[in-house]
Order: sequence, then structure tokens, then C-alpha cells
Amino acid sequence: MTKNQTPQATIKRMSIYLRYLNGLDNDGIKLVSSNDLAIKLGLNSAQVRKDLTYLGELGRRGVGYSVKKLRDHIVKILGLKTIRKIGIIGAAGRLGTALAMYSGFEKRNFKVSALFDSNSASIGSELPGIGIIESIEELENIVRERGIEILVVCVPVSSVKSVFEKIKKSGVKAVLNFAPFKLISTDDICVQNVDFTTELEALSYKLRVSETEISDEGVIV
Amino acid sequence: MTKNQTPQATIKRMSIYLRYLNGLDNDGIKLVSSNDLAIKLGLNSAQVRKDLTYLGELGRRGVGYSVKKLRDHIVKILGLKTIRKIGIIGAAGRLGTALAMYSGFEKRNFKVSALFDSNSASIGSELPGIGIIESIEELENIVRERGIEILVVCVPVSSVKSVFEKIKKSGVKAVLNFAPFKLISTDDICVQNVDFTTELEALSYKLRVSETEISDEGVIV
Repeated sequence: MTKNQTPQATIKRMSIYLRYLNGLDNDGIKLVSSNDLAIKLGLNSAQVRKDLTYLGELGRRGVGYSVKKLRDHIVKILGLKTIRKIGIIGAAGRLGTALAMYSGFEKRNFKVSALFDSNSASIGSELPGIGIIESIEELENIVRERGIEILVVCVPVSSVKSVFEKIKKSGVKAVLNFAPFKLISTDDICVQNVDFTTELEALSYKLRVSETEISDEGVIV
Repeated sequence: MTKNQTPQATIKRMSIYLRYLNGLDNDGIKLVSSNDLAIKLGLNSAQVRKDLTYLGELGRRGVGYSVKKLRDHIVKILGLKTIRKIGIIGAAGRLGTALAMYSGFEKRNFKVSALFDSNSASIGSELPGIGIIESIEELENIVRERGIEILVVCVPVSSVKSVFEKIKKSGVKAVLNFAPFKLISTDDICVQNVDFTTELEALSYKLRVSETEISDEGVIV
């Protein structure tokens, strides 16, 4: 799915630009330069300029970019003009509950619209302000009825495969997977895997680099 | 810190290769091809070959790569030859507790060696099998005493700045930040920000692309 589109790293930075641009707009600031974006967000300025080329002609170097136009265009590109409904699978677990209650989502046009779990003890119980936990067996019906577009997977590794089979039947197009088991996108479902250990390993790499001489490892710098 | 080293995306894929290579090694498989890695991990094969160039001459196309050598070299590059001790700040919160109990870490050479919180009600309470939650005021002492190398931040946005000030004093070199507030790396501390909404926005982008014609948006394909 969309293998030849805008690079994923650029898309992720667009999310970061979007948050910053919203802040500037709230402060009534009209213009922003790529350098300002780079400095304020701790990014490489050449990288920022390259990212902005994906947004077309919204400004000129020196003069700067229109904050509003840039923001509106990013919102359009990221498909955030309408609220996207998400469902959380494994909502009774610690991580699932944490994500269901995560304040960041609603602010950014994502609405937690369904909570699923397979643990019969928690089915029917409520996450205050979010909703009732429903049976994973209801996944297909609820996804279709409520127009859920993204399913967030927070189940144990042992259940991931069977849950993914149910997800395939549900007709949902996007999955955010937090289980430490990599799911592969299909022609119909785009999967984004989040692996906390991968983030730690990226830090471990940087610690190791700061400890030793990278060239010793035969890594091309 | 390490701005000019191996690309971060490559480092993250090395984590993914590492998991797969461990599996192959457990199954007694000696050789692996870049195509096999690409197909099994749902990656672009040219990308995989490029990544492998960062590992130096460990194999030949056609013949394949030595699973053991490749794995050992990635372990070395990622600095995973020794266990890295991590501390979790905000360990009494839902996400903090979920991360403290996250089974994936120990398997991959990270040990949760300290739990911190500012909520006096939870200080002194135990997370079974992990440890006692200690006061954030003890951060500096405990980081030094136990040799904590990475701090994982799971505090509310309102506390992030003050917590980061305490982290700077602690002498720790790496931070994994889950608070929806971007922390910028300093000369002394390398920060990795994890923003769940950014992951959702990346999926939203892909949904939008599958809904509309990307070229309409003036995005260079």
C-alpha cells in the first residue's frame, strides 16, 4: 500500500510540523521559515526544506511560508480534515487502557469509538469517559456499524495472529500494532508496527556510538 | 549527538533484522539472502541490500549472508552486548506501569532497574516482579548508584519540562519520551520521542492516499 508515496519519515515529520504550526497560528504568527522550523524542532534544515518541497509552492525562501497555508495543506495531506474513528483491541490490558485514555488523540482528530477485549471478566465494564469494553467477537459488526477506520492492537503476542485474522474479516483498512510481533501489511490493510524495544535499541546504538569509535564496527559513516 | 551516523531508519530496521535472525539461528539456519529478509519482513529488497552495506562485507549476493555473523554484528552495532539498565519515570501511571511490565524488554537485553513517580501515594508501592516505586527526587542518586543508562518518560505533559530538568542533572545519556510533548536532544542527552498520534497520522495519510489521488495534493510521488 502506497509504497511509492511520500517517504514515511517525511510524513512523520509533517505531524511534528503540524503541531508546531498550530501553535504559531494560535499565537497569530503569519509566516515561518524552514530554518525556524528546523531550529525549533531540532531538525536538519536541509531536511526540512526537502520535506516542504512535498507540499508544493507555499512560500519562498527568505520570505518564508504562510503558517495557515502550510498547516491546512499538511492537514489535507495527512487526511485529517475529518475525524477518524479508532477502535482499541485489548482495551482491558494496561497498555490498551493507557492508550484508550491517552489525551493526545482527540486533540488531533482521532476518536476512540470502540473498545474490545477477549477477557469475559472485563467485557461490559466501562472506561470512564471513553466507553464500554465489548467482545472481540463483535469486531466485524461494530467496525462496520460505527465506521471504525483504524484498529489499535494491544494484545499479548500469543493472541496477535488470531486477532489479525479477525481484523482482516472486519474490513478495516489500517492497523496500529503495539504487540511485540511484527504484522505485515496486506493489499487491503496497512499496518504500522510500534515496538518499544526498537526505540530502546536506537538509543542503545547512540549510547554505543558515544562510547566507541563507530568506524571500528565497519559501519559506513 | 551522532547526527552523521547510520540513518535512524536503518538502525530501526536493524532491530527488525535482529529479531528475525535470532529466529533463523534458533532454527539452525546458517545463511540468509537479502531477498529473504525483504520478503519475510515486508521490506523493499533494494533497501535491505543498502542497509546491509552498513554492516560491511558479511556475505555475497547469490551466496547469501551468514546468519550468525550478521546477527552478532548487528548486536555489536546496536550496543547490545551488555545489558542496558533503564529507569521508568511516571511508573505509577497506566502507561508507565504497562511499560515497566512490558515483557519485550528483558528478552532484548534491557533491564528495568528503577521505577520513579512523583505521586506520594504510590511511592513505596511495588510493581510485582519489577521493583518498588521510588521518589523522582531520588532520580540523580539512583541513576548514579545503579548505573541507569536510559530513562523512559511517561509523565503528563504538564510535568515533562520539570522532569527533563531533573533528568539533565542525573547524568543519564539517553531518554525515551512517551509524553505528547517533543523533547529536544542536548549535547549530553540523546532523546527519542514516541508520539502515538504521529503513528496514527501516518496511517491516516495512507488511508487518505487510498481514498484520493495523491497527485491532487501537489505531493511529489
